[in-house]
Formats: sequence, C-alpha cells, structure tokens
Amino acid sequence: MKHNSTPRKATIVALNDFCRAVLLAAGADAATADAVTRAMLHGSRLGIDSHGVRLLHHYVTVLTEGRVNPRPQMQLSAAFGAVASLDANDGHGALAAYRAMEHAVQLAGQFGIGAVAIRNSSHFGPAGAFAIAAADAGHIGLAVCNSDSFVRLHDGAQRFHGTNPIACAVPVPQSRPWLLDMATSAIPYNRVQLYKSIGQKLPDGVASTAGGEDTNDPQSVEMLAPLGGAFGFKGSGLAGLVEILSAVLSGMKLSFDIAPMAGPDLSTPRGMGAFVLAIRPDAFADRETFQNGMRRYVETLRNSPARAGASVLAPGDREWAKADRREAGGIPIDPETERVFRELSQQFGLSLPFAGHRAE
Amino acid sequence: MKHNSTPRKATIVALNDFCRAVLLAAGADAATADAVTRAMLHGSRLGIDSHGVRLLHHYVTVLTEGRVNPRPQMQLSAAFGAVASLDANDGHGALAAYRAMEHAVQLAGQFGIGAVAIRNSSHFGPAGAFAIAAADAGHIGLAVCNSDSFVRLHDGAQRFHGTNPIACAVPVPQSRPWLLDMATSAIPYNRVQLYKSIGQKLPDGVASTAGGEDTNDPQSVEMLAPLGGAFGFKGSGLAGLVEILSAVLSGMKLSFDIAPMAGPDLSTPRGMGAFVLAIRPDAFADRETFQNGMRRYVETLRNSPARAGASVLAPGDREWAKADRREAGGIPIDPETERVFRELSQQFGLSLPFAGHRAE
Repeated sequence: MKHNSTPRKATIVALNDFCRAVLLAAGADAATADAVTRAMLHGSRLGIDSHGVRLLHHYVTVLTEGRVNPRPQMQLSAAFGAVASLDANDGHGALAAYRAMEHAVQLAGQFGIGAVAIRNSSHFGPAGAFAIAAADAGHIGLAVCNSDSFVRLHDGAQRFHGTNPIACAVPVPQSRPWLLDMATSAIPYNRVQLYKSIGQKLPDGVASTAGGEDTNDPQSVEMLAPLGGAFGFKGSGLAGLVEILSAVLSGMKLSFDIAPMAGPDLSTPRGMGAFVLAIRPDAFADRETFQNGMRRYVETLRNSPARAGASVLAPGDREWAKADRREAGGIPIDPETERVFRELSQQFGLSLPFAGHRAE
Repeated sequence: MKHNSTPRKATIVALNDFCRAVLLAAGADAATADAVTRAMLHGSRLGIDSHGVRLLHHYVTVLTEGRVNPRPQMQLSAAFGAVASLDANDGHGALAAYRAMEHAVQLAGQFGIGAVAIRNSSHFGPAGAFAIAAADAGHIGLAVCNSDSFVRLHDGAQRFHGTNPIACAVPVPQSRPWLLDMATSAIPYNRVQLYKSIGQKLPDGVASTAGGEDTNDPQSVEMLAPLGGAFGFKGSGLAGLVEILSAVLSGMKLSFDIAPMAGPDLSTPRGMGAFVLAIRPDAFADRETFQNGMRRYVETLRNSPARAGASVLAPGDREWAKADRREAGGIPIDPETERVFRELSQQFGLSLPFAGHRAE
C-alpha cells in the first residue's frame, strides 16, 4: 500500500523524550544523551532536517559499534589565559562542542574573548546549535568544523575539503539571534540527493563530475563545488580557514584523512577536531551601543527593498520562522526516519514519539 | 601622441621613498607616512593594484582636506584582558590597523588570542596587509572592515553592505603565508569598470541593475551582487559578520551610513570601524604539530589534481608569484597614476620614482 504523502508529525517534547531515552538505552551517559538530543532538535526545529532527528539511528550505531565513546571523560587543558583545548576522549561531537562553547563563553566573560580547540572528537551535527549557545548567553559565538572530503578545490578535480561549515550567532535585543550557518560548499550534498530522487537538474556551477567539470546532472555528481562559482577560490579559501582552525590548530585529521561518515568502518574513532570562539560584546563598547547597533542593523536590513517577487531576510529569519511553525504544529518525520524510529522503539522497548499506528 | 602601451615601471625601493616623501610633505607624521606606504606597497607588490600606490593621490587629498587626521593621537583602551579598543582619532586606517594588529599579536602572545576593535578610523586599504603582519609574527591573523554601501543583499534591490573584505593569513614553515584576502561581494567594482572600458560582458550573477536584477552589461550596473550567486545569502551573511565585527562592536557607522569614499565631502571624518584578531598557534597544540599540519595541508593542496587546462593554487599563491615577479622586475605604473605622480612631484618638489621623462 502506498504511503500517505503527508508525513507524520511529532511534538518537540515527545521527540526530546524519545531521542534521549533511545540514546540512554543505547549506552550513552546522561550528558551525551542530553547534548546529542539538544543538537538534533536544534536541526529539526529550525528546518535543517539533514542535521535533525534523522541522525538518531546513525548516532546509536556509532555509539554502540565503537566509533564514538558513549561515556567519555572530556578534559580541558589550558596554558594561556583566554584559550583552551578540550580533549573529547572520542566522545560525541555535540557534547564536545557544547562543553567547549560553554568554556569559551566563560573565558570571554573574563578576558573579552575566548576560544577552545576540540581534539579527539566526532561529527558534531548542526554548527549553528553551538553558536546559538553563545548568543543565548549574550555573546557572539562562532563554531566551525571540518569533515570528510566532499568538495573540490577551485579548479580542482578531487574531493578535498569537507563541507566545512561556518556558524555564527549574534544576540539581537527583543529578537531571536542573527544566525548564519553555512557550508562553504556551493550546495549541501542532500540537495544533490533530493534532485536525483525527483529527477531535477542542478543549478549551474554547484557540483562536478569525477574530472572536476561542472555538471547539472545529479546522477553524475562526484563532488561538490566550493561556494562562489567562477569565484570559487573564495569558497575554497573559507573552507581552508575552517580546516586550519578545526584540524591544524588542534592537531587533528585534515578532511582528506577523515574516514567517511557513513562507514564502512563504524568502530574506529575518527580523530576529528573543531573550533569554537566567543566574544563578549561589551568588552569593546558599552552594552547599549552594541544593542542599538544590532537593532538598527537588523531592522534596516529587514526593511530594505527587495527585487521584484522576492523578499529580504536577515540570516536566520527563515529558520526562526520555520521554528515558530514547528514549535506550534510539530516536526514532520520523513517515512524512512519513522521506520527507523519504530525499529528503535521495539529494540529498546520505548514508546514512539507519535501516537498509535499509521492507519493503513 | 598616443601613449606607449607598455606601462612605465618603478622599483619597490623608489616607490617606497616617493610615497613616504609625498605623504610627509603633505603633512602626515612619520608613523602615518610609514603605515600608509607599507599598506599601499603590499597592494602594489602582490598585484592588488586597486589598493596599491594608485591610492596615493586620494590619500594626499583626504589628509590635506580634513577627512583624515595627518597627525593622530591614537589611544588604546582595555577593560578586559585579551581585547582592546583603539580610538584612531580620525587618523589613517592603515596606521590604525597596523597598530591594532601589533597589539592583538601582543595580547595573543600573552593570552593565546587577542582582538582589537578600531574606532574613529578611515579607509584602511588592503585588508591582507594587516593579516600578514600577524603571520609574520608567527600568529594567525584576521582583519575585516566594512565600507560604504555598494553590494545588494541576497534578493535585495538596494546598495546595502560595502564590499566588506575578510582577510586571513596563516604562517607556513619554509613558505610564504597562506593568505586569503577576499571581498564578500561576487566581484570587485574595479572589475566592472575594467569590463566597461574594454566593452566586455560581465559573468552571470555578479552585478545588478537599480531594480536588483542580474545584468551582464557593465553600463547598467548599479550595485554588486553578494558572493554566492543563487546562494547569495551566504555572501550577504559573511558581509553581515564583517559589518557586526567592524561597526557594531566598535559603535561605528554601518555601511549604509558611511559617506562615499570618493566624496564629494572630503573634509569630514567618516567614522569607520574595523576589527583585527590574532591567534597564537602553539597556545592550542605544540609548535611542531601546528607546523607539520600546515605543511601537510598546503603541500597536499598544491599537489592535488586540477581539472583539464587548469591548475590548483593555495590562497595567496597567485599573489606571491606576482610579488616575486614585481620584486625582480618592478611595479607597473598605469598612465593615470603616472600623470598624478608627476603632479605630486612638482607640487612637493620631489624626484619621481622612475628615471627621466617618457620619450615622446
């Protein structure tokens, strides 16, 4: 029988309980279960579904098969005042990134700025989640992470950088934070997968064949292009900056040395780095100056004229609007994720985050 | 008589002497003359001619007409350990940025990271010059600055951000630094001017008409597009990050409030901000780990396969190759700059940086 085209929905509260319970049942300690759930729900709430609760099954797998330590002893070390290193003990990247940002915010509170390099970590999920953690504490937050190679260099013909995201969040008075969370590739890979499944051509200059040539055919995509099209040296350069901060500063693996996220090896730690930074705004000018400046900047932007048929948004506005809708109406669960949730609920003897069974 | 098509060349030593002497004769103090000359020669040496010695005439004008204070008393202030504000006293942006980066490097030496927000400054020239100053001291350097509006928002129909550059330099053992120096617009405006003068069409998606629509015709360009083409929200977001760090943190003017660089008002200070940051690499991992990581990253990048007919370069490689050629063979002076140099040499009774008169 054909699936209903309207996906099932789950409330944030129910998803939160379910994800946490599954992770705990899979052997994660409370801190890991909490951080991983929080990061996935950031993705699901804001509409970044590739980094939302659909990752639950992957995380259960890597926590139980050995790649990710379910009960890590993370250690902070610092020889200089305003920076530190966090050894994540091969634990989950989301726990490492929240811990690191928490410490960066503490350092910024004391020194005006704080940075933490993360070592021996793993996939951290949606970078914006950790930048937001700083903004929620009144600071400017930046979070970056390299990842396994998938993006060619400018004029390159080989997967070189990961999608290497840059996330930055800035508090805005009486508003949700300004939030930039962008891959340094031209498009995310799941866009290629989506276009492949619906048989649509890709835009120009966003993906390449094995020879590094541009292609519009999702079937022949071997790698993504860096942000910038003909000016892809900018996207490549930004990916490089992420690589240097995440992997070179921490002494961790460069993108082209990181084992693929999907396996086949799911039992060996991936040796990933990441980097977070917090800036205390009132360490430069006073609090009111900063707040007035942000308010004026964001309000002027939102009221700026758009070209015909379009509208102008501040970074994050689209995601916050989505979050409002999903907080009120629930989070849609795609059929594959629903199937996996049913398996996990049976495996661990847990209730599903949505009531009853689908009417068939 | 028609100009010879081969431009006249000047050595770096001669240009250095000439620019410094002109600035001093125009009333600049020694520190200003030194910093402005150093920044312009960074541009001319690396082939960034829009920010090279062709700016000498503009700088003389603003130093003598009142926009830029030729003898500023710049003041550092700090309430928190690892950050500071530099009030540039309406002096030249290049002096402010070198001073700020020097202090950021000192802070990073002590605290592992250091940042300085610049207030009451002016056009600082090529952002890469200040990032390089940190890399030359063994640190990672970042320099950003907003500027008068010239770039539309994603889907916008109005000049909103400046070209808001991001420059980052990272030391590489036995090599010149990794150097990213990029505008967050799709192209620089001088590319539009060049294509207009030679009657060439612009690439797709890099510039817009007054209505915000894409145009390939340089004659109808009213504003530049943000980096990223169809994904211009990324370029706009990066421009916003530059805006927030440069102008909001410092309480200075947002791009759309900054008087145009070219005038007509050349006597009122422009109230510009900027932001520089330095990171001490061995505050995270040890020096060898960082150096080995950078070496491996850059070497692997340079040896990575290119698509047919192209080659792969690390950020800065093109500019450093140009610098090698120009250090050996001299810096070409375009006819308009040559004409202005002749005027300045007569006005201040100074020798030209090239021998004799053009044979006519």
